[in-house]
Amino acid sequence: MKNLIGACMFGQSGGPTSVINASAAGVFTEALQQGNITAVYGAAHGIQGILTENFYDIGKEDLAELENLKYTPSSALGSVRYKLKNVEEDETDYKRILEVFKKYNIRYFFYNGGNDSMDTCNKISKYLLKCGYECNIIGVPKTIDNDLYGTDHCPGYGSAAKYVATTMMELFQDATVYDKGQITIVEIMGRNAGWLTAASALASYKGFGPDLIYLPEQAFDIEKFLKQVQEVVDKNKGKCIVALSEGIKTAEGLYVAEAIAQGNTAKDSFGHAQLGGVAATLANLVKERVGGKVRAVEFSLMQRCGSHVGSKTDVEEAFNAGRYAVKYACEGYTDKMVVFKREEGKEYKINYELMDIELAANTEKKVPDSWILPENKGLTQDFVDYALPLIQGKLDNPSEDGLPRFARLKKVRA
Amino acid sequence: MKNLIGACMFGQSGGPTSVINASAAGVFTEALQQGNITAVYGAAHGIQGILTENFYDIGKEDLAELENLKYTPSSALGSVRYKLKNVEEDETDYKRILEVFKKYNIRYFFYNGGNDSMDTCNKISKYLLKCGYECNIIGVPKTIDNDLYGTDHCPGYGSAAKYVATTMMELFQDATVYDKGQITIVEIMGRNAGWLTAASALASYKGFGPDLIYLPEQAFDIEKFLKQVQEVVDKNKGKCIVALSEGIKTAEGLYVAEAIAQGNTAKDSFGHAQLGGVAATLANLVKERVGGKVRAVEFSLMQRCGSHVGSKTDVEEAFNAGRYAVKYACEGYTDKMVVFKREEGKEYKINYELMDIELAANTEKKVPDSWILPENKGLTQDFVDYALPLIQGKLDNPSEDGLPRFARLKKVRA
Repeated sequence: MKNLIGACMFGQSGGPTSVINASAAGVFTEALQQGNITAVYGAAHGIQGILTENFYDIGKEDLAELENLKYTPSSALGSVRYKLKNVEEDETDYKRILEVFKKYNIRYFFYNGGNDSMDTCNKISKYLLKCGYECNIIGVPKTIDNDLYGTDHCPGYGSAAKYVATTMMELFQDATVYDKGQITIVEIMGRNAGWLTAASALASYKGFGPDLIYLPEQAFDIEKFLKQVQEVVDKNKGKCIVALSEGIKTAEGLYVAEAIAQGNTAKDSFGHAQLGGVAATLANLVKERVGGKVRAVEFSLMQRCGSHVGSKTDVEEAFNAGRYAVKYACEGYTDKMVVFKREEGKEYKINYELMDIELAANTEKKVPDSWILPENKGLTQDFVDYALPLIQGKLDNPSEDGLPRFARLKKVRA
Repeated sequence: MKNLIGACMFGQSGGPTSVINASAAGVFTEALQQGNITAVYGAAHGIQGILTENFYDIGKEDLAELENLKYTPSSALGSVRYKLKNVEEDETDYKRILEVFKKYNIRYFFYNGGNDSMDTCNKISKYLLKCGYECNIIGVPKTIDNDLYGTDHCPGYGSAAKYVATTMMELFQDATVYDKGQITIVEIMGRNAGWLTAASALASYKGFGPDLIYLPEQAFDIEKFLKQVQEVVDKNKGKCIVALSEGIKTAEGLYVAEAIAQGNTAKDSFGHAQLGGVAATLANLVKERVGGKVRAVEFSLMQRCGSHVGSKTDVEEAFNAGRYAVKYACEGYTDKMVVFKREEGKEYKINYELMDIELAANTEKKVPDSWILPENKGLTQDFVDYALPLIQGKLDNPSEDGLPRFARLKKVRA
């Protein structure tokens, strides 16, 4: 544990969220205040910007614009999906990173991302440790999927969950307005973990949510699904709302659209999964087997970049995650990731702690089975108690001409 | 022109908007204050509720909940798509309406909807006039399509336009974040009029919008489209954002997905229009012909019920449209629709006037050609000047548990 003097580098990696830039704002504003940080750099497109010496001098930015990053979705510096090879396999990238870090005397490195990005961060950390190059490295978590191990929840999840629950309530209003029934099938992001789809249960909790919820944590049975939809339709004058994860799979491990395409069910020819997603594929099946008006809806990219409906709690926590990463690094910690620890008790409170980054890399946290109601009826009160605090607070996003006023960075090359 | 004493009936009809209930709030609160209105009824599912004597006594509702209607999307009373036959063809429904109106002494009738609903309203108005049954009838316009004749714009458009422009800005952030390019094709509502798709130009005006915009007002040439996308991709490191109306048609009058399915282009097998919409169909074509990562996005139902991002101007105007309908009816006007007249000059100001309802029925107002830039480069400054005032103002939507607090009506049957 060493209190170093030198420059700091920050990079953004992986898919967009509403609050990834809020963490950037936290890192930057804190780093600019730290006496032992001599320069603050932001890498263009994460690790790639480091490899190509393409990064910005954040000291040249206006503080007001850095503050505005809190309300600017996605990655202001540019993101990247770049998986470092294992060092035993190919050392090239690692050598280059060390070279760049030495050249700019980078002694603090912060990397913001999900599982894969924490893996990258971990590999760099271990390599520099091995080489004896002193650099304090802290990962800043981020993912709408909420699937990172060791943290109560991930920055980005609260805002995406708020988008999902809010939009689901509005869709409920839209989809139930006619006297004639409609079956609405809503597809929500989440390949392996159903946290975001589970957030639609918050809408049900308010009385305006889906009747049936399908998470990737449980095998999807196409015939059972059709039966469950039929039951709701029969009970509810033809009205039925379904929320499901893009990643639902059959017991055989096939994505549902694949399974239908392969004719694994009694049904035949709805195998155009490449065109629509699973909601569109299932909507066609439901139209044929259950009948009535059926509509597929995808929350698509909107759910991960909808910062206009962001959670204030999420933005503040994302900001703090960045801030604490810098604080801890300046205290001498390294090879860690910031995690959220929720205090016991009725009042919601988060403490910002550290965990070995190795533990975060490439693990996945799933929705516990005990929080999933039987027969796809939704989520338990335990889930609601867990998730509801994360979506609290209305943002006071700056606007201009009635539209969002995103941060305008100068992006002066270092 | 006669100042009548009796009950008033209000009905909601057609597709949802964010502010249809704001007009209901305007009608209800004004009607409850008018001395010559003896009772205020809200029809369940529009004209159908009248035919089946299924309506609610609005006098039994809490005023605070009626106020909350301003922030509750879609139709709180239920909507309907019911086209009255011409009276010469079948008089049954008309006789029934007259019977119900007589039974409840309904002397004021307000109907809220788009073209088809104004047609219904017009037919009832003419029939009652012919029968000599005194009833003051005023139509209240509403449609996200903004295609009603005789009014500067329609309640519902401003909020949907704000959703489109805001979400497009966020998508821009999301879609341009990687160093590798992505082609994003966004499908926006509008069968025959491109007003809503045109609103994506407001995002371009702020620097975060689509590169190419396709409206149904102009014939869609598939080969030209592919060429234009290719040009943007070449110029812009593989990044290209397209906004297009669901209703775009080829010069032969075929919907684009149909045209592609029929092999009218050089291409072949992308004819699964029933699964995805036109964006999905074109995304597949672009993937094959232009290459790279291509993503189709549909704003789907969200664009018409996204009241959390509603325009304050729109909500207030929708409320006033309802209020003025009642005021004018109580002054003795009948057989009219409320229209918005924009004052000349720099300051945006709307006056609420009346127009013969016959003029509103079944006509369509399209985006003027002179507002559409050549080569699908977007809309002119004239359009921006027209549309920008309509999306102004942030709503102070009530919330509960971090989620929208929709109106809770008692719905006491009359």
